[in-house]
Amino acid sequence: MAEYQIGDGIQTTSVITQKDICEFAELTGDLNPIHIDDEYASSTRFGKTIAHGILVAGSISKTIGIDYPGVGTVYLEQNLKFCSPVFPGDELTTSVTVLEIINRDKKILKLDTNVKNQEGVSVIEGYAIVMAP
Amino acid sequence: MAEYQIGDGIQTTSVITQKDICEFAELTGDLNPIHIDDEYASSTRFGKTIAHGILVAGSISKTIGIDYPGVGTVYLEQNLKFCSPVFPGDELTTSVTVLEIINRDKKILKLDTNVKNQEGVSVIEGYAIVMAP
Repeated sequence: MAEYQIGDGIQTTSVITQKDICEFAELTGDLNPIHIDDEYASSTRFGKTIAHGILVAGSISKTIGIDYPGVGTVYLEQNLKFCSPVFPGDELTTSVTVLEIINRDKKILKLDTNVKNQEGVSVIEGYAIVMAP
Repeated sequence: MAEYQIGDGIQTTSVITQKDICEFAELTGDLNPIHIDDEYASSTRFGKTIAHGILVAGSISKTIGIDYPGVGTVYLEQNLKFCSPVFPGDELTTSVTVLEIINRDKKILKLDTNVKNQEGVSVIEGYAIVMAP
């Protein structure tokens, strides 16, 4: 059994492509043109298409479920603040770090969860509560 | 310009299939066997594969971005409590309701966001903060 400590964690990297965004749009039905229509997006404050926030949050869920704490983790809660847009091709670094051990016996942890782009700008900040394996 | 009132909102329905779950797993890299491997899943407390929580949350994001408040909404924050598992084929009802008008001039709203399955069991509870169009 792993022993979890405050400050433990992991970083993972990923890139979201326009193809990923289009697939997520089809999957969820979220066909908002800001995500999939270059011409519409160019007329908005963002100037180009942006990824769905929840698709970007998928990098947190993947990091928790696969990398740390990893397979067997039960996801109880996720808070997400969408700080900045994510554009196709952005290189994202997702960090998951133990903030608090809520219940050591049940291995319930509060994790800091954040995603930054290649310029170090936070695109998502927030936390998760999980039952670790 | 729409005038938003506490209690306004919408309900949408959707079904998440095993195919959707497999596509989301590929898209995010979250290939946790609890989501995609029937044999592994049958040995867990759930007894069968379950959808990724963040994929289910996509139904909230879609409802906000497409249905209410709809296209042009800027997603600022989302809190998600994963209350119960979602199984392939579950029929989900997603409700988005204005809880609070945080800033009427800037149209910043706090929305109650919840998802229930066909038995009326809450699978996600939480809230969003958005800037409405």
